Amino acid sequence: MATALAHPDLISLAAGFTDHATLPVEEAQGAFRRLLKTSRSGQAALQYGTTAGYAKLREITASRVRRLDGGDEEERYRAGRVVLTNGSQQLLYMVTEALCDPGDIVLVEDPTYFVYLGILQSHGIAARGVRTERDGIELGHLQSILQGLERSGQIHKLKLLYVVSYFQNPSGVTTSYQKKEQILRLLRRYERAAGHPIYLLEDAAYRELSFDGNACRSALAVRGAADRVLYAGTYSKPFATGARVGFGLLPEPVLRTVLHIKGNHDFGSSNLLQHLLAEVIGSGAYEKHLSTLQRHYAHKAQVMFEAMRKGFPRAVQFVAPRGGRYHGAEVPGDVATGMKSRLFKAALGNEVLYVPGGLCYAEDPNRRVPNHQMRLSFGAAPEPKLREGIRRLGMALHELMDKQVLKRPRPAVTVY
Amino acid sequence: MATALAHPDLISLAAGFTDHATLPVEEAQGAFRRLLKTSRSGQAALQYGTTAGYAKLREITASRVRRLDGGDEEERYRAGRVVLTNGSQQLLYMVTEALCDPGDIVLVEDPTYFVYLGILQSHGIAARGVRTERDGIELGHLQSILQGLERSGQIHKLKLLYVVSYFQNPSGVTTSYQKKEQILRLLRRYERAAGHPIYLLEDAAYRELSFDGNACRSALAVRGAADRVLYAGTYSKPFATGARVGFGLLPEPVLRTVLHIKGNHDFGSSNLLQHLLAEVIGSGAYEKHLSTLQRHYAHKAQVMFEAMRKGFPRAVQFVAPRGGRYHGAEVPGDVATGMKSRLFKAALGNEVLYVPGGLCYAEDPNRRVPNHQMRLSFGAAPEPKLREGIRRLGMALHELMDKQVLKRPRPAVTVY
Repeated sequence: MATALAHPDLISLAAGFTDHATLPVEEAQGAFRRLLKTSRSGQAALQYGTTAGYAKLREITASRVRRLDGGDEEERYRAGRVVLTNGSQQLLYMVTEALCDPGDIVLVEDPTYFVYLGILQSHGIAARGVRTERDGIELGHLQSILQGLERSGQIHKLKLLYVVSYFQNPSGVTTSYQKKEQILRLLRRYERAAGHPIYLLEDAAYRELSFDGNACRSALAVRGAADRVLYAGTYSKPFATGARVGFGLLPEPVLRTVLHIKGNHDFGSSNLLQHLLAEVIGSGAYEKHLSTLQRHYAHKAQVMFEAMRKGFPRAVQFVAPRGGRYHGAEVPGDVATGMKSRLFKAALGNEVLYVPGGLCYAEDPNRRVPNHQMRLSFGAAPEPKLREGIRRLGMALHELMDKQVLKRPRPAVTVY
Repeated sequence: MATALAHPDLISLAAGFTDHATLPVEEAQGAFRRLLKTSRSGQAALQYGTTAGYAKLREITASRVRRLDGGDEEERYRAGRVVLTNGSQQLLYMVTEALCDPGDIVLVEDPTYFVYLGILQSHGIAARGVRTERDGIELGHLQSILQGLERSGQIHKLKLLYVVSYFQNPSGVTTSYQKKEQILRLLRRYERAAGHPIYLLEDAAYRELSFDGNACRSALAVRGAADRVLYAGTYSKPFATGARVGFGLLPEPVLRTVLHIKGNHDFGSSNLLQHLLAEVIGSGAYEKHLSTLQRHYAHKAQVMFEAMRKGFPRAVQFVAPRGGRYHGAEVPGDVATGMKSRLFKAALGNEVLYVPGGLCYAEDPNRRVPNHQMRLSFGAAPEPKLREGIRRLGMALHELMDKQVLKRPRPAVTVY
């Protein structure tokens, strides 16, 4: 914020929010007109709700997730398993509070959603990073961490693994369904040693923001594992970030504790917003808006990708994501991207801002925090600014990396 | 809830919410029409907000509280001191989390808002009850508690005193301005012994719900004390409970911590609801609705009061409140009102529900929880149901108390 104020011409590729142009003003207008048309429907929406949330939206939510999973089994997609929250953020917070004590350990992806690291820190919970590859975390690394925790007598402190499973923030990576199955199987094997369930907290915030409307099934669909999956979803990003309605699908014991916590936090989210969401989903406006959004972001992602190909040095690596809001980019290991790095300052000098990758890594004593990645969002900035922002960042990269190359020690000459 | 389902003809004098008829359907309709009329204003409302809240509503809130206090001094009513929350409940939760550690002590009124007792319990904080009289807590008792804590070396555990200052839930009592001054002076005297500030958490949830539009000044107005007052207010009750916008006016160090906590909870309340409130207040619709509400509840309180005078045994004590949603009633000490009492069961048998006063008392080792009060709300039930509910409760009281009198030992005969 302070940075933005000091640099009025700044192009932010850091902010992850929706761009203004896509916000569903007419859809919301229509929905409120219908909702508030009669005293009866209007009064119902303007009255207190319940702690778990508006029954109709809980039903819509459960059956929507079931449909996305192509599921026919009813139990795990029961409306009674749904809690509606103030954005999915509140769900992440409450689930963590429900399951963890200070001193506990939570496994996260390397890199992960940095706001969740803040939640862990505020609860005095240690985060351990699991390395990731193209289709999610590396199972071998997960296994070695689990073994290590068992060997060192710390496995009882492990309550959950947190995965941002679709078009990840910050990397853009999607966890494959097969990997979810393998993860759940692996976690289950350590439950006896832990003495309690080890949950997979699946943050599906970006699930509906695929570019082509397709995304793999969630961990809820894994046979025999629904009692170990804490599913976090949201309507904020697919509909309107200003409305902030998120949700969880949770197994019974966790749900009960979460509802108790929510009772203390705020005894239920705004009923009016929940009626709004039920109305826009019920009328079909949500679905229509969503496909506009998908096309819009697919295009912006493409624009940014092309600009990166054109403007970045060849040594910078990045892959085109298939949804979400982010390109993860990686510069060579000898170029730092952190807030004190020359690159960050050069970028700021060129009036462009990115999120340093280092912020997205847990403070894990077992490795150094990598310092050569960037999160670049095509969310907030309009198309011309995306192009210009990447051009400016490219200039900073070129300037620095070309210099850097000169300063690198020449490779030793090998005499054949 | 379970009780209500099992008794379909039940009249609930327990629920504290607004009655359906007063909910501002047209006002909300008009406000959304104006807000969502142009892309510009609509997009601003549908976008993410900030953690502290919508700047315009923070300003409106600060100047509104200043006006209610008849204040001319600017600093303590600065918009920068305001945080907007999910109902005032979230503010109460966050302030308590910000200031207290498990094992700490919070002073509350005897009786107090029972949901706040839940918040304390969830944080492992001990509550101590301060006796109350017609104009708020008994200063003598407060002083003796403070002395006791100092003597026993526990005063360092005391971080705040929680007071529901206007038309209290559950008693209907209002704390006088003079008493607020005296409380703040007294707390300040123990800060040296405590080694830190001792705050007054003023829950002003019912402030705007006076019957005649008048209410005394808040503790913020006390000279030289604004740095010790945590003011919690809400727009939910005066406007729409389904909208859930609350707020706090806080001194800097507490505000900073609360914003950090809110960043973890949900990184900001729904921007759309905050724009709604700014719009209805700005347009004057809020004020107009509020005076309708005040007249409406003044009338309902009167109806209930008359019904109580007519239907209750003379030994039942109650006073007419001048605002809020509640009549506190007290039966003779040998009649219990708790959930397992014969009265509660008899009331339920007569299809009427009240909140047992015992639920509104902290578990304080220094006294037994009183068990002969009832909270009777004129909030939710429409007028005919209020009359009928009180009639039914009166029947239960009569039946029980008339029997009770017979069973009481005859007073010893005194021979002159």
